[in-house]
Amino acid sequence: MDLSILQQTLQIAEKYIAADQTDPVVPHRQPAEWLADFDLPISQEGMPEEAFMQLLENVTMATNKTASTAFFNQLYGGRNMVAVAAEIISVITNVSLYTYKVGGLQILIEKEVIAQMLKKVGFENGEGAFAPGGSLTNLVAMAVARNEKSQTIKNMGHDGRKYIVYSAEGHYSITKNAGLLGIGRSNVKKINSDSMGRMDPEKLRKQIQTDLQQGLRPLIVVSTAGTTVMGAFDQFEEVDKIAKEFDLWHHVDGALGGSALLSERYKALMKGCHLADSVSWNAHKLMGVPLTASVVMFKEKGMMKKHISERAEYLFQSDDEDLNPGIGSIQCGRHNDALKVWAMWKWLGHEGYEKRINHIFDLTKYAAEKVKSDPSMRLILEPQCVTLCFQVLEKSSIEICNYLNQHGMAKVGYGESKGETFIRAAFPNHNLTEQDIDRFLEMVKLAGEKI
Amino acid sequence: MDLSILQQTLQIAEKYIAADQTDPVVPHRQPAEWLADFDLPISQEGMPEEAFMQLLENVTMATNKTASTAFFNQLYGGRNMVAVAAEIISVITNVSLYTYKVGGLQILIEKEVIAQMLKKVGFENGEGAFAPGGSLTNLVAMAVARNEKSQTIKNMGHDGRKYIVYSAEGHYSITKNAGLLGIGRSNVKKINSDSMGRMDPEKLRKQIQTDLQQGLRPLIVVSTAGTTVMGAFDQFEEVDKIAKEFDLWHHVDGALGGSALLSERYKALMKGCHLADSVSWNAHKLMGVPLTASVVMFKEKGMMKKHISERAEYLFQSDDEDLNPGIGSIQCGRHNDALKVWAMWKWLGHEGYEKRINHIFDLTKYAAEKVKSDPSMRLILEPQCVTLCFQVLEKSSIEICNYLNQHGMAKVGYGESKGETFIRAAFPNHNLTEQDIDRFLEMVKLAGEKI
Repeated sequence: MDLSILQQTLQIAEKYIAADQTDPVVPHRQPAEWLADFDLPISQEGMPEEAFMQLLENVTMATNKTASTAFFNQLYGGRNMVAVAAEIISVITNVSLYTYKVGGLQILIEKEVIAQMLKKVGFENGEGAFAPGGSLTNLVAMAVARNEKSQTIKNMGHDGRKYIVYSAEGHYSITKNAGLLGIGRSNVKKINSDSMGRMDPEKLRKQIQTDLQQGLRPLIVVSTAGTTVMGAFDQFEEVDKIAKEFDLWHHVDGALGGSALLSERYKALMKGCHLADSVSWNAHKLMGVPLTASVVMFKEKGMMKKHISERAEYLFQSDDEDLNPGIGSIQCGRHNDALKVWAMWKWLGHEGYEKRINHIFDLTKYAAEKVKSDPSMRLILEPQCVTLCFQVLEKSSIEICNYLNQHGMAKVGYGESKGETFIRAAFPNHNLTEQDIDRFLEMVKLAGEKI
Repeated sequence: MDLSILQQTLQIAEKYIAADQTDPVVPHRQPAEWLADFDLPISQEGMPEEAFMQLLENVTMATNKTASTAFFNQLYGGRNMVAVAAEIISVITNVSLYTYKVGGLQILIEKEVIAQMLKKVGFENGEGAFAPGGSLTNLVAMAVARNEKSQTIKNMGHDGRKYIVYSAEGHYSITKNAGLLGIGRSNVKKINSDSMGRMDPEKLRKQIQTDLQQGLRPLIVVSTAGTTVMGAFDQFEEVDKIAKEFDLWHHVDGALGGSALLSERYKALMKGCHLADSVSWNAHKLMGVPLTASVVMFKEKGMMKKHISERAEYLFQSDDEDLNPGIGSIQCGRHNDALKVWAMWKWLGHEGYEKRINHIFDLTKYAAEKVKSDPSMRLILEPQCVTLCFQVLEKSSIEICNYLNQHGMAKVGYGESKGETFIRAAFPNHNLTEQDIDRFLEMVKLAGEKI
């Protein structure tokens, strides 16, 4: 019986994947409509296997499609079967990556992935750890930064001083994390960005100087590699110079843009990231593996143990500390997020990944050219990464997005910058083609006509 | 090609699962030995699909077995195919559960799971959220507690006062989280436990009074449902009375023991948990789903939004706030951990889960009786949950554990309490039988003879 469930699951998966072509978007329905059609409530009695597997199939087929060629809503997506295969193996084996005693060989696989990422970043003597998602890798970096710069906080508690974090178009997790860490959300200061969405280093310097004069304690500057809306890359060298001048921790949030390091052609976008104290990088975005696979890296070895670890004798009982990554983790039980990244990278090699990264960056530039050559549309800025910011002239971008979503044509969101609203389409999916871009832009124009 | 990879993965999974019977323990090997046998390093060139899939198979077969009947090392484990099937669907569909726009129907499934858990806990008007693992659900609870009790911290930053957290045999994440949140690790005070491993409420009261007299700020008491080593359940009613008397937040860490709520026979262990302000509960432990599936619940609605949320206009663009759980989450992109829990629960029904919970609790009592009836062994205490704490007379428990691990006989760890060291075996796996327990105890005795 047990293995037959696996076989049936495979059939459901195959059917769902096939529908990516025939029905690339699940129509948007209100909760009441779904609840009328699907028997979701859990009851006293269970269900026979056959009926349950039918329900699971129905639920699956009604689940949104993030891998179809009509999904442009988020900075992740696409489906690569080798990564899916490896993730299924992680589920089947279900080892927790806290100790070598349980994780065994998979601990070494995680180490290999982190070592390759460290090499790409340029942290030759660094260290790294997985955490479930970019918000939490930023949390780890910010916690380490706070504890390193103010060494009594970890043990004695926060001293009540006003520590300040700076970023320009940083991810909202920076503010959220400042709230969690006791830094305080209002102590995150937004530095103005230039027309390309990049932090203005001179404005950063001035803000730090002002804050110092007021007795505040400048602590961390977070620069971003690939901002959420514009895909902008801050200028890490300039930012780092200022960070060092004022003794701030410099964290590079490369959740999105870190993957540019895989490409000889695009890695210049990450120039200077090795100067920073920490870098985070999500493989579940541009490396095309399923959610989540996020890594935070530190230039200096020992930071995670020094600032995160806690004794747990019931758990860490054997093998070298270096083989028990749970010691430096914010998690205890931890899903194996590394195997899928290793699998894709091992299968593709550096050169295979480079081609894929080039493809999606190139494709975004292709989309920008299409927009520019069409008199009914307007490009907001030249794309630096895989987001396309544009408008249909004289049409509401928000209404276009809603129309596309509600009519099951495409999933795409909007962005806002300097008072202007525009469509923000993301092309992280390796399997997208120029034809998919053409079709998408036609749909956008069609929606513009309909609203 | 793509679907053939899925087929091959299924074959690898089937082979691995079959080996649970023939080779229940992967022998412990040093990293250098694994690295000599496995081509793990990522190279410039990729690999042909066939060779890669062979490597993936080899890696899988060398991965530790947490679902075999010789794994007693951790408080999770076992493999239930319906949960595995649902998790595979989560991987294939790969929706992120931050917004209804992307999560769609799966958001409603997550809501159903949380609603059922809230009902079991007794938080009729409560709310809940998934987070990846019990350490992080505790983090969310402690962050909300801190912000609720001292409302300026989230925005203005920590005020430097000495906030105090109390627990007895609490999980090490309590201390780790206190470090992260700026409370300070040394401001977590350990309350002595009684002979059953439960917090002594009178000692809690006295410590709070002493701390108040010294000008400290008692903030949170964390009681535990199912401690890591002894499986003890604190007395929630007594603890809660003291918490309310001194205006402390009361969090119940039910990562392990929350599942007792699924059983009419064992739910008395959780008596009074509904009085607390928050409860956390891991489904990846006794509910038998793959890592991770952890939920934190609050008695009062609105806590997560009030204390965790952060505006993110690029993300939260449509639908009611209530349908966008990302608003109250510490994560941004978030794997769908809910579907596997829903699948198991829907398939088993309340009554099916009850039988399973009864089975593993009963099995642990069976194991205790076996130990007591054997003059060569000694039971440390009557099990309250699914951990068995025992010794082989005149033998080192640590050496026995190491021997079993190194000889590929079983994975099991040791525990320590009040200066005594003992074997601590965990029986969370629904598929274990009395015969498996008998065989395990024989192996332990055999190891005791060999060392």
